[in-house]
Amino acid sequence: MDSWVDGQPGDSLSIRDRGLAYGDGLFETFAVKGGQPVLLERHLQRLAEGCRRLGIAADPELVRRELLAYAAALGEGVLKLILTRGDGLRGYAASAQALPRRILQGSPLPTYPQAYQQQGIGLFPCTTRLAEQPLLAGLKHLNRLEQVLARAEWQDAEHAEGLMLDTHGRVIEGVFSNLFLVHRGELFTADLSRCGVAGVMRAQLLEEAKALAVPVNISDISLEQFRQADEVFLCNSVYGVWPVRAFADLSWSVGPLTRKLQGIARALLEV
Amino acid sequence: MDSWVDGQPGDSLSIRDRGLAYGDGLFETFAVKGGQPVLLERHLQRLAEGCRRLGIAADPELVRRELLAYAAALGEGVLKLILTRGDGLRGYAASAQALPRRILQGSPLPTYPQAYQQQGIGLFPCTTRLAEQPLLAGLKHLNRLEQVLARAEWQDAEHAEGLMLDTHGRVIEGVFSNLFLVHRGELFTADLSRCGVAGVMRAQLLEEAKALAVPVNISDISLEQFRQADEVFLCNSVYGVWPVRAFADLSWSVGPLTRKLQGIARALLEV
Repeated sequence: MDSWVDGQPGDSLSIRDRGLAYGDGLFETFAVKGGQPVLLERHLQRLAEGCRRLGIAADPELVRRELLAYAAALGEGVLKLILTRGDGLRGYAASAQALPRRILQGSPLPTYPQAYQQQGIGLFPCTTRLAEQPLLAGLKHLNRLEQVLARAEWQDAEHAEGLMLDTHGRVIEGVFSNLFLVHRGELFTADLSRCGVAGVMRAQLLEEAKALAVPVNISDISLEQFRQADEVFLCNSVYGVWPVRAFADLSWSVGPLTRKLQGIARALLEV
Repeated sequence: MDSWVDGQPGDSLSIRDRGLAYGDGLFETFAVKGGQPVLLERHLQRLAEGCRRLGIAADPELVRRELLAYAAALGEGVLKLILTRGDGLRGYAASAQALPRRILQGSPLPTYPQAYQQQGIGLFPCTTRLAEQPLLAGLKHLNRLEQVLARAEWQDAEHAEGLMLDTHGRVIEGVFSNLFLVHRGELFTADLSRCGVAGVMRAQLLEEAKALAVPVNISDISLEQFRQADEVFLCNSVYGVWPVRAFADLSWSVGPLTRKLQGIARALLEV
């Protein structure tokens, strides 16, 4: 399906866009099912939080309207929204007149091997660390060079994702996923107040786990805690849940809580 | 003058460009004088270092040729080059086929008040801190949200620049300038191995100072050292040198080494 720029079909944008110049913007990647963006409200909530923290004056109703119209036309697939501060002149100071730009791109659902869901994935130990920047932590902003560098660390098909630590060696997330551990029946995921992207599927699964009366911990996670986990899995809003089968010298079988939450994610995402 | 995209007149680029999606690219801002980019070799050297560290396979001779041709046509002004990894599909992994994109934009020289050069500037104390990311430190890459946030901290005309510290409180640089201190006849500028942009005018002035037999220190700088400086000045490759006249409760008069280096920078930049 053709992409849209500012509500109109188009596949180009001005070279003066601050999204290009400075990564001055945000993005969201939606699964689209039956013409509807999945987990729409959670995505919009994170986007609104990003706009608030970056001071981007986007019209939330306009963004919602365009998203819904595009998703309806797309039917099934993946919808990526890029929202930038709009055009700028020279210099970091933003013009008060800048009109936030909306870019919508649709694509087919990615086709990952079935084994990723069933037997789990191999997780690559990335050496690229996440810098600690509380002002940007949690947001899905356009400054993603750390992820680009991390993803360039492996090319083999053995690894479907990579594990990223922060500069203090804490276990944070995957390159394009959030991470969960299960230890003695409790669920653990990293505190994302210093770095990382607060994924909407992560938020959804935290809520689902609470509803299942599973104790949930959002905390700093050491590599040692990670190594001692009973179950490890990744999630994002497009593929749902991938069990982690192997990491360096470690291996896990797919555990019961992983399967349970995977089923819940699948029900949300599958057509 | 019209901008160029990939060597052709144009003012738009594909929404699939990874510079937009991830800030996956670099930029350089040249002063152009008599149809020539000033400090060309230093700029190209930093750009090459950025390409090497980010793994962007740009053709250095092509970039140089386009820069020289554009500068010759521009005559006088500011030339901004944006070099991105080129178009991508979905996901952080770069395609080996991606063709690095070159964007050239010319603009008139900015007109700053004469007082900035003569009496110096007021420096705003930014609260936005620079995160420590050695993998990106020194590069002029397109992930610049920290600078966007810092520049949004002040709107008044009293402050021409802002001072940025790192997350450990070390004094690093201005939002769009490098910083120098003079203390007891020695020159100090921040070590940029954890964060900051290694400016070409900074490199030039370090060399000029050595040629003048001024002792030069590239080291961590505390706020206390900054407060005790005899002279403080900023530099970049467009305006040259601005003495710092005031910062919070502190004030300085323009010192002799600042004036000396300012004259050298002016000779390089002025028509």
